[in-house]
Amino acid sequence: MAKDFVRDVTSMDDDFAQWYTDVVTKAELIDYSSVRGSMILRPYGYAIWENIQKQLDKRIKETGHENVYMPLFIPESLLQKEKDHIEGFAPEVAWVTHGGEEKLTERLCVRPTSEVLFAEHFKSIIHSYRDLPKLYNQWSNVVRWEKTTRPFLRTLEFLWQEGHTCHETDEDAHEETVRMLNVYAELCEEYLAVPVIKGQKTEKEKFAGAKYTYTIESLMHDGKALQSGTSHHLGDGFAKAFGIEFTNREGKLQTVQQTSWGFTTRIIGAMIMVHGDDRGLVVPPKIAPTQLMIVPIAQHKEGVLDFAYDLKDKLSATIRTGIDASDKKPGWKFNEYEMKGIPLRLEVGPRDIEQQQVVLVRRDTGEKQTISIENLESQIQEILTDIQQSLFEKAKKHREEKTSVAVTFDEFKEILTNNGGFIKAMWCGDEACENFIKDETGATSRCMPFEQEQLSDKCVCCEQEGKHLVYWAKAY
Amino acid sequence: MAKDFVRDVTSMDDDFAQWYTDVVTKAELIDYSSVRGSMILRPYGYAIWENIQKQLDKRIKETGHENVYMPLFIPESLLQKEKDHIEGFAPEVAWVTHGGEEKLTERLCVRPTSEVLFAEHFKSIIHSYRDLPKLYNQWSNVVRWEKTTRPFLRTLEFLWQEGHTCHETDEDAHEETVRMLNVYAELCEEYLAVPVIKGQKTEKEKFAGAKYTYTIESLMHDGKALQSGTSHHLGDGFAKAFGIEFTNREGKLQTVQQTSWGFTTRIIGAMIMVHGDDRGLVVPPKIAPTQLMIVPIAQHKEGVLDFAYDLKDKLSATIRTGIDASDKKPGWKFNEYEMKGIPLRLEVGPRDIEQQQVVLVRRDTGEKQTISIENLESQIQEILTDIQQSLFEKAKKHREEKTSVAVTFDEFKEILTNNGGFIKAMWCGDEACENFIKDETGATSRCMPFEQEQLSDKCVCCEQEGKHLVYWAKAY
Repeated sequence: MAKDFVRDVTSMDDDFAQWYTDVVTKAELIDYSSVRGSMILRPYGYAIWENIQKQLDKRIKETGHENVYMPLFIPESLLQKEKDHIEGFAPEVAWVTHGGEEKLTERLCVRPTSEVLFAEHFKSIIHSYRDLPKLYNQWSNVVRWEKTTRPFLRTLEFLWQEGHTCHETDEDAHEETVRMLNVYAELCEEYLAVPVIKGQKTEKEKFAGAKYTYTIESLMHDGKALQSGTSHHLGDGFAKAFGIEFTNREGKLQTVQQTSWGFTTRIIGAMIMVHGDDRGLVVPPKIAPTQLMIVPIAQHKEGVLDFAYDLKDKLSATIRTGIDASDKKPGWKFNEYEMKGIPLRLEVGPRDIEQQQVVLVRRDTGEKQTISIENLESQIQEILTDIQQSLFEKAKKHREEKTSVAVTFDEFKEILTNNGGFIKAMWCGDEACENFIKDETGATSRCMPFEQEQLSDKCVCCEQEGKHLVYWAKAY
Repeated sequence: MAKDFVRDVTSMDDDFAQWYTDVVTKAELIDYSSVRGSMILRPYGYAIWENIQKQLDKRIKETGHENVYMPLFIPESLLQKEKDHIEGFAPEVAWVTHGGEEKLTERLCVRPTSEVLFAEHFKSIIHSYRDLPKLYNQWSNVVRWEKTTRPFLRTLEFLWQEGHTCHETDEDAHEETVRMLNVYAELCEEYLAVPVIKGQKTEKEKFAGAKYTYTIESLMHDGKALQSGTSHHLGDGFAKAFGIEFTNREGKLQTVQQTSWGFTTRIIGAMIMVHGDDRGLVVPPKIAPTQLMIVPIAQHKEGVLDFAYDLKDKLSATIRTGIDASDKKPGWKFNEYEMKGIPLRLEVGPRDIEQQQVVLVRRDTGEKQTISIENLESQIQEILTDIQQSLFEKAKKHREEKTSVAVTFDEFKEILTNNGGFIKAMWCGDEACENFIKDETGATSRCMPFEQEQLSDKCVCCEQEGKHLVYWAKAY
């Protein structure tokens, strides 16, 4: 790989934030515009999102949900109906005050999430236990007025899906909350090769208006955590505020139990920061828009391009295959597709054709192997499977190395300074300790994992009774 | 069909507007909310849109376009860069003036369309003729501040795709404009069974900022026209305003030529008003979320439900098949699925099972036939193909019956009063005549069809030279 073809990417270890910005722009995932805090999803970035959408939409439908579409605007009075909800979201909504030349009599907020719209609709369509469960989902854009923004991780506008469901009982809603968290976790681990910790948010960190919030948390290369998907048991808070009642099996009026759950373009940020390296992006094969890129060598020589295009046609039946037959130099192409994180490169030149072989280069390890074109397809499939698996295991190993136990607050601070990553530590349950830890160290409670352990009998902060094991970390 | 099961739909002939409102709500395509002029797309309505999207997205990709996603908000200064564009859109945009508690220093408009955002982005990524053509598309929501709204036809917010492309030459852009109009026309005719007239909009009716606009126009049951898709040659208007230049093949700086084209949820309104009848919706098989609905008869009797579910499993491989095994009465179910316009109903009861047969009922004609379960699948496929074809031909016949020729203005007015529909008449090319016709009759110029004829040598309005054949109609 000739040095002069390298497009500069800041080294991860020198400046992780700059590395991230370099990668998202140079791999052509996004571009900036004159709209503050918003990003343009370029073809490559959007294609990754389309693949995630396709997988997630399939699972959402398989679990019995139907897609709908709610309005973008929410009248201010509607947003105010559930008190915790408005309190949580008011500071970060965009307000429409004029339509054309006319000043509106009531402000409209641009949806930051759609609980209130769904609640209003549910009230009008749910009457009997026969109408339950009502399992809805929508794919949409939402807006949150963030001060500091970063592509994928925190933007004024982002794309997501939001599920909204109504159930007869608390238990049914609980099961739904768990079910959808598991759908997210499986998608992260099996498709994006991003290992996650499942758990419950503390009261302080839960969704505004929820009874409780379940979350999946992942760990980035730099040791910071990323909330990667949340699933909320809403209880009957919205249902009571909006009067969503049904005649139950005993013929009596009863209030529904609700859930909501969301998964966003943010996950692309996780994929970048978990798998990327100093040469750029590394995209897991299952989610990669292009899994294999063919680069013809000495393509001006007779037969090379024909051979390469034939390969492409043959492989395209089962493998998402690209070819770059432009007149750019092979070295430039190698760099370009390494930057874009395409899992596998296939090189083929005149000598290879003579010997009925091709060269395969793995993006994740750089490993190069010469392979006979007999059974090429199944051999590529095997390598892609291995890459997918290796990425997941490497990420898991990294997370394990970056997960520590702290019993005392001194240990806690020391780990955070020296190693970063997840800190497992006991917590008394008091928000004051959460606030103290955040103020002192910058770390926040990520979740109380479903798999609880009793690491010690004292809270890491106040030394009162340690009731819950909590994963703590600095987070995006 | 017992009368007491009928859900009231106003007769089309009594009150077409009320019939439309009844159908969209009772077939559960949409619901209203407290957001003025916006609609909720319910599961059935959204599923139809998903099927349209799937078909259109496939064609957009096959013709070489890539999907991207642009921000929802447009800073006021950006929107103002192209003068005709801002003039056209300013009266109908929603303005965001506050983010959280803070008043913005510059207003943001909620995109009514995204030409200016694409133009800004194109300027930053296009440098050489090698970067051309640039063929982009996005799926998104847009907002236009309409005074009077109607589900699907005219709403404050709607869903659509908008294509945006850059080309080296005027001719290339022209070809693209035609290509995408043809994609829309084919989708309408072959999938939605809605016949269209292709043509060019007059200067008065063209898109704000375009060089010219091509359109497909369809005719509704009540004789009013609906603009069903448009494709614009933008020339270099936006490109000059934004400075989108490239080094051409001669090494000189040149301005790009652009196109844009859009297709919206409005087309669902066309489908409803072209095929629907007094029993409700009629959905063409190719676009129907459920193509065949199985209604078991006497389902409490042994073996009926097993038989029905077996059928469903078998047919589902190739036909989108539903089953209603709820405890509602068959008559209620018949009405429900007729209201929803499901193309074909399959009834099966104990006697049918004995005789190894089922009953099929067509939604479009009401025709009932008893069919052996041997080769059932291929027989159903044949009937679905026939329904698709019949719907298209019926719609075409209706359009022909509702298309008249007017040579004089008296004829024009008489036709509009007595028959409605499309009026083919010559036009001098003067906007004054268009305005006069509109003021006097309510009809607008729909398009100058690509297939021109010389019906007479005089303008139907002013009796000056008749230069263009124009389709006129009252329109939605």
